[in-house]
Amino acid sequence: MMENKYDDPVFFEKYAQMDRSRLGLKGAGEWRTLESMLPDFAGRDVLDLGCGYGWHCAYAAEHGAKSVLGVDISEKMLKTAREKHTAPVIEYRHAAMEDVDFADGAFDVILSSLAFHYVADFGALARNIARWLRPVGDFVFSCEHPVFTAEGSQDWYRDAQGSILHFPVDNYYIEGERQAVFLGERVTKYHRTLTTYVNALLDNGLALTGFAEPQPPQEMVDTIPSMADELRRPMMLILAAKKR
Amino acid sequence: MMENKYDDPVFFEKYAQMDRSRLGLKGAGEWRTLESMLPDFAGRDVLDLGCGYGWHCAYAAEHGAKSVLGVDISEKMLKTAREKHTAPVIEYRHAAMEDVDFADGAFDVILSSLAFHYVADFGALARNIARWLRPVGDFVFSCEHPVFTAEGSQDWYRDAQGSILHFPVDNYYIEGERQAVFLGERVTKYHRTLTTYVNALLDNGLALTGFAEPQPPQEMVDTIPSMADELRRPMMLILAAKKR
Repeated sequence: MMENKYDDPVFFEKYAQMDRSRLGLKGAGEWRTLESMLPDFAGRDVLDLGCGYGWHCAYAAEHGAKSVLGVDISEKMLKTAREKHTAPVIEYRHAAMEDVDFADGAFDVILSSLAFHYVADFGALARNIARWLRPVGDFVFSCEHPVFTAEGSQDWYRDAQGSILHFPVDNYYIEGERQAVFLGERVTKYHRTLTTYVNALLDNGLALTGFAEPQPPQEMVDTIPSMADELRRPMMLILAAKKR
Repeated sequence: MMENKYDDPVFFEKYAQMDRSRLGLKGAGEWRTLESMLPDFAGRDVLDLGCGYGWHCAYAAEHGAKSVLGVDISEKMLKTAREKHTAPVIEYRHAAMEDVDFADGAFDVILSSLAFHYVADFGALARNIARWLRPVGDFVFSCEHPVFTAEGSQDWYRDAQGSILHFPVDNYYIEGERQAVFLGERVTKYHRTLTTYVNALLDNGLALTGFAEPQPPQEMVDTIPSMADELRRPMMLILAAKKR
């Protein structure tokens, strides 16, 4: 069954303490890269899959979206979204993104931030997304990078003294469930290859328009000691595509 | 300076013993995937960058290419190519792919098999390739996968008994030279990120039409004991693109 970890009170509280939760978009290391890959929102109908606190819904609304629909499986996340990020054009819907359905061509823009690695069947979802988009519509998403999800622990390999040796990759081609530890809690995530992510777009008539493996800005690497480790392995992937 | 390892007699002799050298395309694990991504060759002008023994030049000629130009930095490789893979439409040229130049729109198809990880500046080469292609021309290449080239050793991380633990990734975002060991010989290769490879295409007006991380066919995994390890990390990347 679909896991809804964000409604777990302990996990939800830990997530609430993260920079990306307290500070929003500016607290998310990949935001600058993601923002540069976002399409024009003015006058467009927008869907945000796994909208969480609604930061991206608010961003779309602030940039002129005609309508914004945020979908999330977590009632707790949506409660915060409804408190923090309201606007006349924003509607929130409590549902798993695997369960929603819309008319063909219902949206001009479909977004998703760091949610697809919780989805077991990305192929089915990508088919839906391509169908829900109008021609020349835009699809932009971030997810955990396949290098980060492959082995499963999502942790560095260290020597006996605890120093980082490298990041382990294993079972890269074995797609499916991984039991990862995130914020000290066990969370079910799904690993798939880069090939699966990219071809799910190409095979559904979407043209790839952007590809990024976001890395921390140089000033963060220069000023935050641990940040240099973030140059040692990719953690996130951002793809942008356009319906032809 | 550009390394020309394939003219080193010891390395050349070891390379000659590999399945891909003795058996040709059918001896290359990624061939089935690469072949499925190749464009139509009939009546087209083809350039093969880093043509080696000329297997792919011969394939293009057999599939109706109007002309095939194979370029390689190694005289020894070209000597074998001229012995083994001759056809009236094939011409071989001794040069580094970084040094050649052609008129705008000189080719319909540009290929390269496992050579770009020897090239220091892929951005400059990709700009040339995009320029050398005619509109609706095709570009298909294979190279070592960034996961495989990042850390540098290109070897598994093993326990004290020599059993494979996982494959190490490190310095992923630090692009540039790596001293790898290939066939027991030290060889200079260049690591770059997936982002660099993909964006070099997109930024030069090429549309991505294919993305693959080839893996061994299931019957090889079932019958060759060590082959299951090849499912543990990606080793090669194949991209296909079309000039718009």
